[in-house]
Amino acid sequence: MTKKTSNQMWGGRFAAGPDAIMEAINASIGFDKRLAAQDIEGSRAHAAMLASTGILTDKDAKAIREGLLTVLSEIESGDFQFSTALEDIHMNVEARLKEIIGEPAGRLHTGRSRNDQVATDFKLWVRDQLDAFEEALVTLIQAFLGQAEQGADWVMPGFTHLQTAQPVTWGHHMMAYVEMFGRDLSRVRDARARMNESPLGAAALAGTSFPIDRDMTAKELGFDRPAANSLDAVSDRDFALEFLSAASICAMHLSRLAEELVIWSSAQFRFVALSDRFSTGSSIMPQKKNPDAAELIRAKIGRIFGANVALMTVMKGLPLTYSKDMQEDKEQVFDAADNLMLALAAMNGMVRDMTANRESLEAAAGSGFSTATDLADWLVRVLGLPFREAHHITGALVAMAEAKGCDLPELSLADMQSVHGEISESVYDVLGVHNSVASRTSYGGTAPVRVREQIARWKEALK
Amino acid sequence: MTKKTSNQMWGGRFAAGPDAIMEAINASIGFDKRLAAQDIEGSRAHAAMLASTGILTDKDAKAIREGLLTVLSEIESGDFQFSTALEDIHMNVEARLKEIIGEPAGRLHTGRSRNDQVATDFKLWVRDQLDAFEEALVTLIQAFLGQAEQGADWVMPGFTHLQTAQPVTWGHHMMAYVEMFGRDLSRVRDARARMNESPLGAAALAGTSFPIDRDMTAKELGFDRPAANSLDAVSDRDFALEFLSAASICAMHLSRLAEELVIWSSAQFRFVALSDRFSTGSSIMPQKKNPDAAELIRAKIGRIFGANVALMTVMKGLPLTYSKDMQEDKEQVFDAADNLMLALAAMNGMVRDMTANRESLEAAAGSGFSTATDLADWLVRVLGLPFREAHHITGALVAMAEAKGCDLPELSLADMQSVHGEISESVYDVLGVHNSVASRTSYGGTAPVRVREQIARWKEALK
Amino acid sequence: MTKKTSNQMWGGRFAAGPDAIMEAINASIGFDKRLAAQDIEGSRAHAAMLASTGILTDKDAKAIREGLLTVLSEIESGDFQFSTALEDIHMNVEARLKEIIGEPAGRLHTGRSRNDQVATDFKLWVRDQLDAFEEALVTLIQAFLGQAEQGADWVMPGFTHLQTAQPVTWGHHMMAYVEMFGRDLSRVRDARARMNESPLGAAALAGTSFPIDRDMTAKELGFDRPAANSLDAVSDRDFALEFLSAASICAMHLSRLAEELVIWSSAQFRFVALSDRFSTGSSIMPQKKNPDAAELIRAKIGRIFGANVALMTVMKGLPLTYSKDMQEDKEQVFDAADNLMLALAAMNGMVRDMTANRESLEAAAGSGFSTATDLADWLVRVLGLPFREAHHITGALVAMAEAKGCDLPELSLADMQSVHGEISESVYDVLGVHNSVASRTSYGGTAPVRVREQIARWKEALK
Amino acid sequence: MTKKTSNQMWGGRFAAGPDAIMEAINASIGFDKRLAAQDIEGSRAHAAMLASTGILTDKDAKAIREGLLTVLSEIESGDFQFSTALEDIHMNVEARLKEIIGEPAGRLHTGRSRNDQVATDFKLWVRDQLDAFEEALVTLIQAFLGQAEQGADWVMPGFTHLQTAQPVTWGHHMMAYVEMFGRDLSRVRDARARMNESPLGAAALAGTSFPIDRDMTAKELGFDRPAANSLDAVSDRDFALEFLSAASICAMHLSRLAEELVIWSSAQFRFVALSDRFSTGSSIMPQKKNPDAAELIRAKIGRIFGANVALMTVMKGLPLTYSKDMQEDKEQVFDAADNLMLALAAMNGMVRDMTANRESLEAAAGSGFSTATDLADWLVRVLGLPFREAHHITGALVAMAEAKGCDLPELSLADMQSVHGEISESVYDVLGVHNSVASRTSYGGTAPVRVREQIARWKEALK
Repeated sequence: MTKKTSNQMWGGRFAAGPDAIMEAINASIGFDKRLAAQDIEGSRAHAAMLASTGILTDKDAKAIREGLLTVLSEIESGDFQFSTALEDIHMNVEARLKEIIGEPAGRLHTGRSRNDQVATDFKLWVRDQLDAFEEALVTLIQAFLGQAEQGADWVMPGFTHLQTAQPVTWGHHMMAYVEMFGRDLSRVRDARARMNESPLGAAALAGTSFPIDRDMTAKELGFDRPAANSLDAVSDRDFALEFLSAASICAMHLSRLAEELVIWSSAQFRFVALSDRFSTGSSIMPQKKNPDAAELIRAKIGRIFGANVALMTVMKGLPLTYSKDMQEDKEQVFDAADNLMLALAAMNGMVRDMTANRESLEAAAGSGFSTATDLADWLVRVLGLPFREAHHITGALVAMAEAKGCDLPELSLADMQSVHGEISESVYDVLGVHNSVASRTSYGGTAPVRVREQIARWKEALK
Repeated sequence: MTKKTSNQMWGGRFAAGPDAIMEAINASIGFDKRLAAQDIEGSRAHAAMLASTGILTDKDAKAIREGLLTVLSEIESGDFQFSTALEDIHMNVEARLKEIIGEPAGRLHTGRSRNDQVATDFKLWVRDQLDAFEEALVTLIQAFLGQAEQGADWVMPGFTHLQTAQPVTWGHHMMAYVEMFGRDLSRVRDARARMNESPLGAAALAGTSFPIDRDMTAKELGFDRPAANSLDAVSDRDFALEFLSAASICAMHLSRLAEELVIWSSAQFRFVALSDRFSTGSSIMPQKKNPDAAELIRAKIGRIFGANVALMTVMKGLPLTYSKDMQEDKEQVFDAADNLMLALAAMNGMVRDMTANRESLEAAAGSGFSTATDLADWLVRVLGLPFREAHHITGALVAMAEAKGCDLPELSLADMQSVHGEISESVYDVLGVHNSVASRTSYGGTAPVRVREQIARWKEALK
Repeated sequence: MTKKTSNQMWGGRFAAGPDAIMEAINASIGFDKRLAAQDIEGSRAHAAMLASTGILTDKDAKAIREGLLTVLSEIESGDFQFSTALEDIHMNVEARLKEIIGEPAGRLHTGRSRNDQVATDFKLWVRDQLDAFEEALVTLIQAFLGQAEQGADWVMPGFTHLQTAQPVTWGHHMMAYVEMFGRDLSRVRDARARMNESPLGAAALAGTSFPIDRDMTAKELGFDRPAANSLDAVSDRDFALEFLSAASICAMHLSRLAEELVIWSSAQFRFVALSDRFSTGSSIMPQKKNPDAAELIRAKIGRIFGANVALMTVMKGLPLTYSKDMQEDKEQVFDAADNLMLALAAMNGMVRDMTANRESLEAAAGSGFSTATDLADWLVRVLGLPFREAHHITGALVAMAEAKGCDLPELSLADMQSVHGEISESVYDVLGVHNSVASRTSYGGTAPVRVREQIARWKEALK
Repeated sequence: MTKKTSNQMWGGRFAAGPDAIMEAINASIGFDKRLAAQDIEGSRAHAAMLASTGILTDKDAKAIREGLLTVLSEIESGDFQFSTALEDIHMNVEARLKEIIGEPAGRLHTGRSRNDQVATDFKLWVRDQLDAFEEALVTLIQAFLGQAEQGADWVMPGFTHLQTAQPVTWGHHMMAYVEMFGRDLSRVRDARARMNESPLGAAALAGTSFPIDRDMTAKELGFDRPAANSLDAVSDRDFALEFLSAASICAMHLSRLAEELVIWSSAQFRFVALSDRFSTGSSIMPQKKNPDAAELIRAKIGRIFGANVALMTVMKGLPLTYSKDMQEDKEQVFDAADNLMLALAAMNGMVRDMTANRESLEAAAGSGFSTATDLADWLVRVLGLPFREAHHITGALVAMAEAKGCDLPELSLADMQSVHGEISESVYDVLGVHNSVASRTSYGGTAPVRVREQIARWKEALK
């Protein structure tokens, strides 16, 4: 492949060629080569359309389409020599195509521009990521369903403020994440539907006078329709920002779960044992088993949301249409997508492999006066007290138990009656953790029967 | 209204009351009083359900529901005394209710908790904002349609890199923003549909043993269904984050338009005259007419996206379920929503009132070799040259015109033929700006006929 | 005070007055009234200088300076009527001054502009915050020194990855935060020194032809010197951004400590008991004692860093000099400063009031093979093994202890020798936690002797 | 080089090795190999100290130090085979050292850990960047001084709100950026001084029982002193955050200048001609000369500040000491530093090469009633009017000129006197742009004499 200077490409406009700094800051080939497959797919669709509308001869179109396949195979095999002087993936592909098929290569760029070309390439790439994102979410949800099914009736502490609040079930806790990642799934699907419009044929910014058929290329590339305004089509990066927004919220969910896994793996909690496959040791402390994967996943929100901030900042205040600032879009999205997929895969593995420590969970569930609310509810339900009064009485009984160093069920009936005379023996029925969780049968509640309903609903939904 | 210390509310648990610093950092009543109407609406629905399911007597429920209306009218009239010692809107309302109706007030909090209550209140508030957001977008889009209709065939420079690229039409440029704000509209609708699930009845975190009917309260409050997992229901703030994400992307669109208005208002551009209603003068430079509203709108992305960063950072790594950190959610969303609505209203006014300077636009459209691409396309279409060769020849002709200090149409045919011998007289037909825009008839292109099609499509869609 | 429309102020330039939306988006008086004292201080210094340089008569200057004191006392007493039509604090003060002293009020604005005036006011305000920030840091560091002094030799687990790594001392852990907040202190001092240049007299942007004396006003207002370039002086907001950067890093430190306090307060850790003054109860779960203050402090990084993002985004890409976008600077800094000071005050209270649970800390310090590294070091030091080999042997001994369900000191010598034959009785000397911490006497190490050295060094430094 | 599994390194603790996902998320060698030179420099200093303190024999230390040089030369020549299974740069270097020198390699890790090692490596790297940052700022400031010197008395419009405000000088505008980048310089120097403390010898987190000499290694590595608390030393990333903060503010300055260059390069402004070396053409519009470098520089704030957000988010809420989350620090800083240096270099080139269009600037300076303030000042100075009244009269004269379609100097004296009878002939002296700028001689003002003073001051300061 012969070297061409950018100067040559721009048609004699410049007296001086860009020097090394300019090449370093300007060239995008170092990263946009990841768009090679999309670029070639888009060009092949464009060539077919040009022939179909009579703008190109069938012969030229055939040469172009076959030549592009050759280029693709060279790239995939690693034989392709990318050139920084040729700036970007579009010029690299086209220059090589010209070497292979000669003059017809110069006819490919009819009725389009690099502006609509790069928008098309990048949209196709982001669309692929949205599809992969969706798939990874479904897989992760299934991992939670497996955990939830196994431990639908295992009790554990439900926390607020990292303080034991009420007993809940392991299955219920797992299903909370199903709801969270389920919303992510819904967001990803909406984003994909919204962004699936083809920029191809918007040309530089104004459309073209060639009689192109944008519906044809849109259909060929799997888009639902062509974008309806050419100025917008080349200056829109909403699809990238919406991907980053959805990825950021998902990464936030991952960070919450990762935080729980780190805390639950501590010697003080011992709620779960993470698989050795997702832990590491220390170079100096041989006894350590560190939840490295969980920590790294927890950190990914920084990187992914940082990319969101970066691209939002880039887009701020850009006049229409294309400005070179927008070249900064790709690396942010590439990095965020790579790290999101990695984090989802690692989290999927960790969730599948982790072992809940059923005994620790149950022991913790019962400590810390965790059924105090059940006692308060009993006072309302059985004695007909207003909730606020019941709450006050319960507080006094907790204070009494704390002073005696015992738990609520260990208070004698006489002790209890010293606080409120009408308390009767049946109060002891509601103070056990299994009774407690079984009783919370309101829709969406922690009772095993409710948890199993939700598992069934989700299995059906993912079929 | 009697003063109550927090100590009293928490049922005797604490030896010492919180001091001034703690009150300052802990109390939310200073801002969450904005949720008063939603709080009362939620409580009224809850009371009706408690009666319907037999948990409360009809008499008590009636007293509660009527008492709450009294509280609401006190708040709306400004007579209500908010108390910081009562911490938040929930306790302020309930305490006042007790003063008005006495003992039954204490029965209202049965089968719910502040955790599901605040989630419900806040969701109702955010849902109202999504509705207002939608309405503001529709209004703004109509303002653009008005501008586009009036100037569907006015020519102006289409820019890339803030350099004149090709002539486009004013209507086409206006319609680019219709597409952008149209995507915002679609995003807002998706977000509203996704978030419309009722947290009420999730109680503290585990659901409740009272036989509540969550479908009933969900329906009463206009939710599509109850949230399916009580742990998730009280710890989810996705709805706030998705609102902020959508608001941020919209604010980015506003910032691009605002930047254009600032640049277009400069003495050097003079593309538009902004209404005096949205401009200001200078305290020291009497001749200035400053595009203040546009500048302030341009800045709003900082504030709105800053709120997004803030809440995302808050949520990072929070273990389930509710943590007090989440109290920081409201002020961010309040401020972002207020500023978004203000920015949309101001932009709507500016777009309606602004006057495009048709002569300046047309003059600028024709300068700077803006029809060079048309010339290149002519070489391809008429002489059958490959695009790349046509591009090179055009570059040479531009360089020649630049050297002569003239524009392309002012080059003689002999000059042109000195670069490529086959160029003929008919080339001059494509060099005028009106010819240029009229010729770009590809779907989504800048030709007035295409612009009018899009105006019609949008009018139909917004009916 | 008579109402004046903005129209009147701008000198007849506008045909139409701004309407309600414009007033809402444009007026800053709602928040910049917080700059009243600074505005009046700046104006008084300016008037004195105008008299000193002969631009104003002494009589007028005296009237102005006294009138301004009257305005200040009206504002401080709450009697002042702020007017939105007068837009900002500068015009509100000046209009009231005119009512009080009449015509000379109009001479105050000679040789300055609102652009340098607001920059001066805001700088004075931020400088006050930097001083308060410094003081709060010193106070907080002293709280840590108190904790460190008390528990210089209490042992606790040192964590990496929230896994027990090696025993450390409570004093050492407290002193880690002294270093962190000590760096904040150093950053604040640098920021203050850098920003302490006076914008006053830069006028609108170009300086002035009046023979003003900028050194005099700079000195009067406590600035080190006048800013050296008038264009920069009115368009610079670095001082606000640097304040936000320093505040953000400090808030990050606070979030780490707050996270530790939340985890340490859990039933599973019980490392500290937080004061009731900084905890709250639950409306439904009477037994809860929630670390609310710690959680709220943890969340403040979101708000403070969100403000940093907001202002950085606002400033991005603004051409020189003043643009109205910059009016968005104040609310971000006000909110960040208020929340930072509150968080520092609350953390100071929590650190002073908290009680380390010495027994729990010591028990935890010894569990989890925490002196494995000491064993490895013994193998290197006594047996002369390479560290990597010692590490491997220690790993095998830990695995053996784990399999036997015992701790390292409970392995018999025979057990030990089965892994490495040369291990001798003296190995047991290094396995206790007190021996372990006492041995780590390298500079900055956890040995009590080293901790006490650092306490002494810091006490000296803060004298 | 033989392959080693991570399993082998961790001393037999794990039953199962990490699989591909774990390797992908966990291994840092892909990026931390950039720390190779720093890692080897740190290890060599450590080895020398171990020998000096008698912990290592001189012979072993010599073998280690020479072996490390061999490793370094292998890395620098590209011959080194990095292994992902060995995770990071530290293990890669040490494993290779062992292959070269055998058993003594295992003694190098005595008295240190990967935790203090990576902190040391990264600090050395960041320190190098701070030095390069400083140098780049000095170079850039010199480029501005060159422009300022050449055009100290060229007039141009001074803008507020992108509206012509008052005439200023080109030199004055250039010097505004000198102040901005001068503050960056000061920030960089402060940051370097603050961060220059050696973590080496903090070991895993608690210090060590080996009699190491931290002062010696600190001195050897150019640090001012050892870090004073070992827990802090391994968990501190303030130095990275402060680098990112300073880089972000500098990138903000660059974005403002870049925005100006983009606007000034437009056909409507034509204030500067950028060098062809920093511009590019269009693939479809041959006449375009796009300010690509300026646009890309403008965008860099997104990337650099995005990295700041990312790392701040990562650090939020991390308990002490080292958590694996912190491994995400390096790529953010690497990317930000690379892009900052590139942006500074490109901006330096652009500023040096750009040509101010003196005629366009002067013509623009005089239009738009730009000397209205001079007129108002004349009314104050000569007629003794209060400023506010002078402002009002000037507004009326501007309105009159606008209505007549002329500029202020073209109003007749009679016209002027119809607004205020005392206006005399001498008013015309202040209405020209050269008179205007020459008159603004207040310190820091735009008068050429003042600009030249500042140039001289800066030249002296940079000597």
